[in-house]
Amino acid sequence: MKLAELSERSGVSTATIKYYLREGLLQPGRRITATQAEYGEEHLRRLRLVRALIQVGRVPVSTTREVLSALGDDSLDQHSRIGVAVQALPHAPLPAEDDPATEHARHEVAKLFERLDWDDSRGSGPSSPSYGTLLTAVAALTRLGYPCGVEELLPYARAVSQLSVTELDLVARFPDEERVEAAVALTVLYEPVLLSLRRLAETDESGRRFMNT
Amino acid sequence: MKLAELSERSGVSTATIKYYLREGLLQPGRRITATQAEYGEEHLRRLRLVRALIQVGRVPVSTTREVLSALGDDSLDQHSRIGVAVQALPHAPLPAEDDPATEHARHEVAKLFERLDWDDSRGSGPSSPSYGTLLTAVAALTRLGYPCGVEELLPYARAVSQLSVTELDLVARFPDEERVEAAVALTVLYEPVLLSLRRLAETDESGRRFMNT
Repeated sequence: MKLAELSERSGVSTATIKYYLREGLLQPGRRITATQAEYGEEHLRRLRLVRALIQVGRVPVSTTREVLSALGDDSLDQHSRIGVAVQALPHAPLPAEDDPATEHARHEVAKLFERLDWDDSRGSGPSSPSYGTLLTAVAALTRLGYPCGVEELLPYARAVSQLSVTELDLVARFPDEERVEAAVALTVLYEPVLLSLRRLAETDESGRRFMNT
Repeated sequence: MKLAELSERSGVSTATIKYYLREGLLQPGRRITATQAEYGEEHLRRLRLVRALIQVGRVPVSTTREVLSALGDDSLDQHSRIGVAVQALPHAPLPAEDDPATEHARHEVAKLFERLDWDDSRGSGPSSPSYGTLLTAVAALTRLGYPCGVEELLPYARAVSQLSVTELDLVARFPDEERVEAAVALTVLYEPVLLSLRRLAETDESGRRFMNT
């Protein structure tokens, strides 16, 4: 298909497509004349992924480039490609100093990981940037005096563990060559799903308890 | 306490505290001389909340002001104050056009809400900005061809419903006058907890399945 059709089918303007091509987020089409190129289904699919990462996932353009390059790195196995791509996503900075709140966070999170049998050799430990995000958030809760020990964290960890089994079952439905892309897309695109459902569930539960009737 | 002590105990620089005072995010201290004011525990507590919303929750300054003003609105009952504060938090824009993907999203989300018995009269329906965020995300998943019908959404919705019961139990531990602040702080501060735990759980599960051993 021509650029105009790619634009129409993806809902992305031709100016934005040209920008993505310049930024290397979209592979170039097959050149057929000096001014025209031909695009295929793989361009449409990539374009939708880029659009979703940037618009829904709010992933910055430069990070999107890193994520995409990890997706295409054939020297890595599937787990490593998923890992590199997910680690390239934006993360909160690590806690700067070891104040008492950060100490408390380290202690409680370590206990949590023992209880869950999560293992750094699989990348789900202190080597992961998500571990830093978790520490930062638990330290902030601690400073504010909100409960956030291992007992409060466990229900969240158990809920996401169950969900991750469902998610990886979903990823396994895809053919081998689409699986890494699916894992990363589902990681990013189900984040707003999860957060918006959580706010709706909280609103509903709050209404059941606290509404003047 | 003086400004210097407030800064030391909160870990927030005096320049930032003065900025928050100017922006109306922090209530003024009790003036004791022409150049000095006295601050209390309520200033320390508010300062930590502001810091956490802005730094951990990445809530913009102007939105933080709206959230705080909803917290203090005594004309509303607790459920409404929580609702107004949470609605003031940043949300994805509503889907602009009704393309087939958005139609599909509307249809599946409506079925989901029926199954869950979530009710717009409690604010957990189409009137909530989170409903728009959910539609946008489901429409993006649909466009990319990823499964996101009612059967895929239900496990997420059930997980967050269970969590919201736990969360509101936690909120109920606080004295009445701190309850709305606690609900909003826990909503915002547990978001990075939930997302980072989810990425860690996915990494662990992916490692169990796909790692070369």
